[in-house]
Amino acid sequence: MSEDKLAALEAKLEAMDKRLQRREDELDVRKLQFLYGYLIDKCMYDQVIELFTDDCEVRFFGGVWKGKEGARRLYCERFRKRFTHDNNGPVDGFLLDHPQLQDIVDIEPDGVTAKMRARSTMQAGRHKDYTDEAAGLGVRQWWEGGLYENTYKKGADGKWRIHVLNYFPHWHADFDKGWAYTDPEYTPFIRTTYPSDPAGPDELIEDHWLWPTHKLLPFHMKHPITGEEMVAQRWEGDRKRDEERAARNKAEAAAAVTG
Amino acid sequence: MSEDKLAALEAKLEAMDKRLQRREDELDVRKLQFLYGYLIDKCMYDQVIELFTDDCEVRFFGGVWKGKEGARRLYCERFRKRFTHDNNGPVDGFLLDHPQLQDIVDIEPDGVTAKMRARSTMQAGRHKDYTDEAAGLGVRQWWEGGLYENTYKKGADGKWRIHVLNYFPHWHADFDKGWAYTDPEYTPFIRTTYPSDPAGPDELIEDHWLWPTHKLLPFHMKHPITGEEMVAQRWEGDRKRDEERAARNKAEAAAAVTG
Amino acid sequence: MSEDKLAALEAKLEAMDKRLQRREDELDVRKLQFLYGYLIDKCMYDQVIELFTDDCEVRFFGGVWKGKEGARRLYCERFRKRFTHDNNGPVDGFLLDHPQLQDIVDIEPDGVTAKMRARSTMQAGRHKDYTDEAAGLGVRQWWEGGLYENTYKKGADGKWRIHVLNYFPHWHADFDKGWAYTDPEYTPFIRTTYPSDPAGPDELIEDHWLWPTHKLLPFHMKHPITGEEMVAQRWEGDRKRDEERAARNKAEAAAAVTG
Repeated sequence: MSEDKLAALEAKLEAMDKRLQRREDELDVRKLQFLYGYLIDKCMYDQVIELFTDDCEVRFFGGVWKGKEGARRLYCERFRKRFTHDNNGPVDGFLLDHPQLQDIVDIEPDGVTAKMRARSTMQAGRHKDYTDEAAGLGVRQWWEGGLYENTYKKGADGKWRIHVLNYFPHWHADFDKGWAYTDPEYTPFIRTTYPSDPAGPDELIEDHWLWPTHKLLPFHMKHPITGEEMVAQRWEGDRKRDEERAARNKAEAAAAVTG
Repeated sequence: MSEDKLAALEAKLEAMDKRLQRREDELDVRKLQFLYGYLIDKCMYDQVIELFTDDCEVRFFGGVWKGKEGARRLYCERFRKRFTHDNNGPVDGFLLDHPQLQDIVDIEPDGVTAKMRARSTMQAGRHKDYTDEAAGLGVRQWWEGGLYENTYKKGADGKWRIHVLNYFPHWHADFDKGWAYTDPEYTPFIRTTYPSDPAGPDELIEDHWLWPTHKLLPFHMKHPITGEEMVAQRWEGDRKRDEERAARNKAEAAAAVTG
Repeated sequence: MSEDKLAALEAKLEAMDKRLQRREDELDVRKLQFLYGYLIDKCMYDQVIELFTDDCEVRFFGGVWKGKEGARRLYCERFRKRFTHDNNGPVDGFLLDHPQLQDIVDIEPDGVTAKMRARSTMQAGRHKDYTDEAAGLGVRQWWEGGLYENTYKKGADGKWRIHVLNYFPHWHADFDKGWAYTDPEYTPFIRTTYPSDPAGPDELIEDHWLWPTHKLLPFHMKHPITGEEMVAQRWEGDRKRDEERAARNKAEAAAAVTG
C-alpha cells in the first residue's frame, strides 16, 4: 500500500514539476523580452544580438534579417551607424524608448518553444541641440505604437533566446500633429535587400501596411473559451481601398520596370 | 516511520499544489485581461463577449450592462455600430488602443474568484482622411488614463472568465491641448437606460466623476503591511466644490422635472 | 528501496519548493511595486511610507533620504505639502500618474533580497482651473520617462518591503513642446540637505544627469547569455561635452565660494 502511495506521490510531483516548469518558462521569456527592451532603449546592440539564437529571424518594417549575421547587419550596421555614430550605447539628445507592455507568453507542448504577443508605445526623437544636418539627422520627435508576435527557443543550455523577433509598428504620430494627421503616404518600408543594401534584409515581406491602414496582426493563440481562431472581419469600404491601392502599386511597379 | 514520512510528504505536496495553483490562476487571469485588451483594440467584439460569464456586469461611463446580453448590447449594439460600421474588426483610420498595464491580480480564498486592479493609458481617435461627417464621425484624437477594478470567476470547466468589468476613466486629454485644458463640463456620462436607449445600460451609476475632479477608485485589497483599508482623504476645498456641484445638479434635475 | 525513493522524493520536493518560492517572491515584489505606483498616483503618502523598511533609502532627483523618517520627510513634508495642501489623497486638478511598467524582478541567493529594474512613463500637471498662483502652482503639464533600480527586503514576518527606491528620471517633456525641445538648462536637482532644508535629503548624489544628456542607468543583473556585465560605451563627442560641463560647474562652484 505504501508502494502505491509512493507511486501516486511520484506521479503527482511529476505533474506539478511540469506545471511549475511551464510558469518558470513564461516568466523567464518575459524577462528576456523586457531586457531586450531595455537594451534597445540604450542602443546597446552588441548585447542585443547575444539574446538571439543562431538561426534567428528579425522581421522589421517590411524586411527579414536572417541568422545572427543578419541581426548584426540590422542592429549594428543599420541602426548603430545611423543612430549613434556607431557607438554601442546611448548618445545625448537621441531618444528611442521602447516600453515593453502587455506580454502574453505561451509555452508550446514541446517545452522548448515559446510564443509571445506584446506591445510597445514608443517615444522617439532627436533633440534640437543635437542635430547633424549634414548627416541628415534633423530635429524630430514622434510617438509610435506597435505589436510583437515573437518566438523563442530554449537551448540545450536551458537558456531562452529570441528566435523570431517580429515587431509590427501599427501607427506613427508626429509629436506635434498626432495620429489623426499622420501622412498616409509615409511608408518607410524597406525596399532593397542585402547585399545591394549592405545593411539590408535577406528578404522582403510583401503584406505590409501602416496606419491609417489598420488590420489585425494575427494571434499566435486560439480564443481561450471557444477554442476558435480569432479572425477579424475586413470592412467592405476598406477592402475597396485595399484593391485600389494594390492596383496603383502594380501600375507603379510596371511603370518602374518599363520606365 | 516511513508511513509518517509519507504522510508528511503528502501534506507538503498538497500545500505546494495550493500555492502553485494560486500563481497559475493569477497568471491566467492576467492573460485573460491582456487578451481582452488586444481584442478591444481591434474592435473584435464577438470575441470579447465570449470572455465574459453569463451573469457578467460591464460598468462603463456611468452605466451597468448586465449579463451576456447586456454586454452584447454595449459592445455590439453601441460600440460596433458607432465605431466600425458594424464590422467585427478594426477599420482603417480609427484608433482605440487600450494598453493593459500594472495588473495586480489576487485570488480569493474560494479559489474561483479573482480581483484585479490594473490601468490603461489609451490612444484614440479618427484620422483626417477617414471622417464621416454625416454620421457625426469627425477628425478627433485624445489620450485617456483609466483604472480597472475587475472581478473574474473560474467556471466548472476550469476556465477563467470576466465577471465584472469595471473600467473607470480618470482623465481625458485632447491630443492638442492636454490634460491641463480638459473641459470640466465634458461629461459624456450615460443618462438613458435600456430599452429607452436600445444600446443603453440596465442601470445607471450615481457616483461618477471625471477629471479635473480626482478621487480614489477604491482598492479591492487591504494594505499588505498594515492590513488596513486604504482610504484617501478628501481635501476640504474639494469637498466644498463637491457640495456646490451636487446642489447645482439637484436644482437642474428639479428644473427638468417641473420644466 | 522505498526509503531511498522516499528520500529522493523529499529532495525533489525540497528543490521544487525553492523554485516555487523564488517565483512567488518575484510576483509578490512586483505587486508591492505596482501598489507603490497606485498609491503615489493618488498622493496617499502615509500608506506609501508603510511599504518601506525601517532602514530604507529613497534616491530621487539628486538626493538620498534615509530611513523611514527620511522617507516621511520626502513624501509628507516635501511632496504632500507642495502638491495637495497636505491632504493625504488626490486633489482635484492635480495629476501625477506613475504607470509601473516592464518589471524585471530577481531574487538574490539569500532569498530575502530582491532587485528590480522597471520603468514609468508619467503624465503629470495641474489643470488650468485649479491653479494657485500665490503658492506658485500655475498651470503646467508634462510627460516624463524614468527607470527604477530598486532593492527590496523580506522581513522576519515574511513580507516584502522596499529597501532602496531608486527612481531615475531620464527625460522630461513639456506637453506642448515635447522631448525634442526640453530646456537643457532645466536642472531641478536637489541642492540643500536636511536640516537646512527641513524637507531636504540626508545626502546629495553627485553623478546626476537629465535629458538631453543620456546615459545608462546600470543594470543590477548580468547579461543572461554571456554572463557579462552590461556596460554602455560613451561616445567621444558626448565625453567632450561632459568634460566641458564639469569644468564649467567647477568654475561656477569656485566663483560661488569666492563671490
